[in-house]
Amino acid sequence: MKEGAKAVFSKRIDRLTSSLVREILALTQKRDVISFAGGLPAEYTMPPFDFADIPPHLRQYGTTEGEPALRQAIAEQVTALGRPCTADQVLITSGSQQGLDLVSKLFIDEGTPVLVESPSYLAALQSFKLFGARFDALPLSPSGVDPAQMRTEIEHNRPAFAYLIPTFQNPSGYCYDRATRQAVAQVLEEHGVPLIEDEPYRELVFDDCDRQPICSFMTKGPWVYLGSFSKTAIPGFRIGFMVCSPELYPYFVRLKQSTDLHTNRIGQWWIGQFVSGPDYAAHLDKVRGAYKEKRDLMAAALGRHMTGLAQWESPKGGLFFWLQLAHKIDTRLLLVKALDKNLAFMPGEPFFPGNVEQSGMIRLNFSHADAAGIEKGVTILAQTIREFIADMPEDGGGPVEI
Amino acid sequence: MKEGAKAVFSKRIDRLTSSLVREILALTQKRDVISFAGGLPAEYTMPPFDFADIPPHLRQYGTTEGEPALRQAIAEQVTALGRPCTADQVLITSGSQQGLDLVSKLFIDEGTPVLVESPSYLAALQSFKLFGARFDALPLSPSGVDPAQMRTEIEHNRPAFAYLIPTFQNPSGYCYDRATRQAVAQVLEEHGVPLIEDEPYRELVFDDCDRQPICSFMTKGPWVYLGSFSKTAIPGFRIGFMVCSPELYPYFVRLKQSTDLHTNRIGQWWIGQFVSGPDYAAHLDKVRGAYKEKRDLMAAALGRHMTGLAQWESPKGGLFFWLQLAHKIDTRLLLVKALDKNLAFMPGEPFFPGNVEQSGMIRLNFSHADAAGIEKGVTILAQTIREFIADMPEDGGGPVEI
Repeated sequence: MKEGAKAVFSKRIDRLTSSLVREILALTQKRDVISFAGGLPAEYTMPPFDFADIPPHLRQYGTTEGEPALRQAIAEQVTALGRPCTADQVLITSGSQQGLDLVSKLFIDEGTPVLVESPSYLAALQSFKLFGARFDALPLSPSGVDPAQMRTEIEHNRPAFAYLIPTFQNPSGYCYDRATRQAVAQVLEEHGVPLIEDEPYRELVFDDCDRQPICSFMTKGPWVYLGSFSKTAIPGFRIGFMVCSPELYPYFVRLKQSTDLHTNRIGQWWIGQFVSGPDYAAHLDKVRGAYKEKRDLMAAALGRHMTGLAQWESPKGGLFFWLQLAHKIDTRLLLVKALDKNLAFMPGEPFFPGNVEQSGMIRLNFSHADAAGIEKGVTILAQTIREFIADMPEDGGGPVEI
Repeated sequence: MKEGAKAVFSKRIDRLTSSLVREILALTQKRDVISFAGGLPAEYTMPPFDFADIPPHLRQYGTTEGEPALRQAIAEQVTALGRPCTADQVLITSGSQQGLDLVSKLFIDEGTPVLVESPSYLAALQSFKLFGARFDALPLSPSGVDPAQMRTEIEHNRPAFAYLIPTFQNPSGYCYDRATRQAVAQVLEEHGVPLIEDEPYRELVFDDCDRQPICSFMTKGPWVYLGSFSKTAIPGFRIGFMVCSPELYPYFVRLKQSTDLHTNRIGQWWIGQFVSGPDYAAHLDKVRGAYKEKRDLMAAALGRHMTGLAQWESPKGGLFFWLQLAHKIDTRLLLVKALDKNLAFMPGEPFFPGNVEQSGMIRLNFSHADAAGIEKGVTILAQTIREFIADMPEDGGGPVEI
């Protein structure tokens, strides 16, 4: 090799941030770590494998769009949610993460403005950023984003799309109210801004709240609706889906083909059988019951140990508590201290589309740890926060009002 | 929606060519079509599903890198090929097509020069082009590309990488000889140009020929070696792999995570069991025997029906015959006529990195059709070519010397 010669990477690699999620998932493989970090479903909620009737023809290559039976089942489910659609609008993806990759490919060039919630799902932000997105951030409140502010942002910045997680948002757990859902749909449609609606958590509902998809309030589009079976069935299959307004569909299919030809057929068959089967509704009830119990356990533990240290809302569904700490600290540093005590959680900073250095926010997953782990983990968390604050220099992150 | 408002796509969508492969695969779903088109393995060569021992923990999310047992098995296989490596260099991908997507993401910006064989695998060309690659094409002969010409191209154009399929190349079926493999490795390493070596067909060998990976002749790299289990086991699982020189690995892992988090674990487990099991060597022998028989059937049928209409080399492995027709016609038009007679094949034009309008080349797959289908299909092909030539205007595609 010539002196100094080395591989030259694309410009996007400069935007490839180190992935905290991946590194933390790796750490939590250690058995003795209590993990509130990932969005890992509890294994005891997952149905058992059953491959007794798998047809041998699924060994062959399949079509890019996906298995017809699964596409039909999804079209029926999404139609039942109030968003009429046909199987011809359904693309099976390798997890809903792949839906984000395809959205990035379809819409994002270097410098393309993209409208996102603040905070938002960090792996979506990472994908959009990798492709060169410039973020316009809409602050998120428990009832959703502010439609008037959305209109202003759109008129000023003309984003290529709006990426929203209206139901049990990640990381906040917030659920848009009905009026906001309708108003957001109207603003987007008026301006012809595509909606990317991401709903991995919608089936994990514990308390009454409005969950009607925003895209169901759009008469024309363009819209994309992303879903997953990873939270309600078996994540190891990597089966997600995208439903979209018809004019977008052919682009996504061709982009999917170029990405990985098609999604694994064995997982598609299994999920198709399961979600169309007679036991699915009962299974969903069981999963909701199990997670509601966990949610209540964590709510109680937080009440016991974290009062005065943070404030939070009890989520009506999903997998996460989102805590605002009493001190606006860099929670990545707090995580380092917590890992020393074998506790993992998600620091808040990477969920913000801007460069936030001291969010004072943390995300706690309640679905993965068991009851004893939730109690012990929250105890460790409170202790770690107290020690962290005690060690802070005078000017390090002032207290916020809670 | 405002008058005239519509979604604005990324610039790459202008480069999203319609995919002939996908459209033809869709056509060949019709039962009565004899397909020489896709690279579909024959289902009777595929091992049966067997999930009796699948561990339930595979239902959970997995790691981006892949299942440890499969990564270890691949590292041992690739080391045995002469390219020492460890499991830490192995990334499991959603088919080897995903390896191409990750390579595009790592290396290609708009206008990035990329060195490819001419002809080359069209889905690789499509992926590179989607990301903005500008192709430097190296003409391919039965012994491989010309290393001296490769050196000249590199010195003039400084490509970001060289993409080569040295063993039973797609579409040509050619297999680089030993001297070319060594010389190519040397030229690339001297200039620090990354090698992307794609080997989906290497196990499908019928006659003696050199198959030592080019990357095994590189002492430093950078190099990437792509492999697949779709041709020797079960394509429906979508399990492929990438092995690479250590300095590239962390980038690919992060790009893979952003793309789809990880590859389905059920397929990884199955393939890991199968390729590490006691029956794998015998299975490969069986597959090779079955395809060799098909290759010989097609060679005989071509000899009977196509002499004078085309010339070809009998491939020593892989899945394809590559025919130069006696007339340099646009074979996409020939395909339209053949489909009328329920015969599908791959026209040559899309395999060329430049804009070739009349390649006079076609690719015939021999692994999918049965013996009667091969005979009947070649008969129809010869008839279609004769009719096509008879209908040609005087100036439409002059005869080439064969």
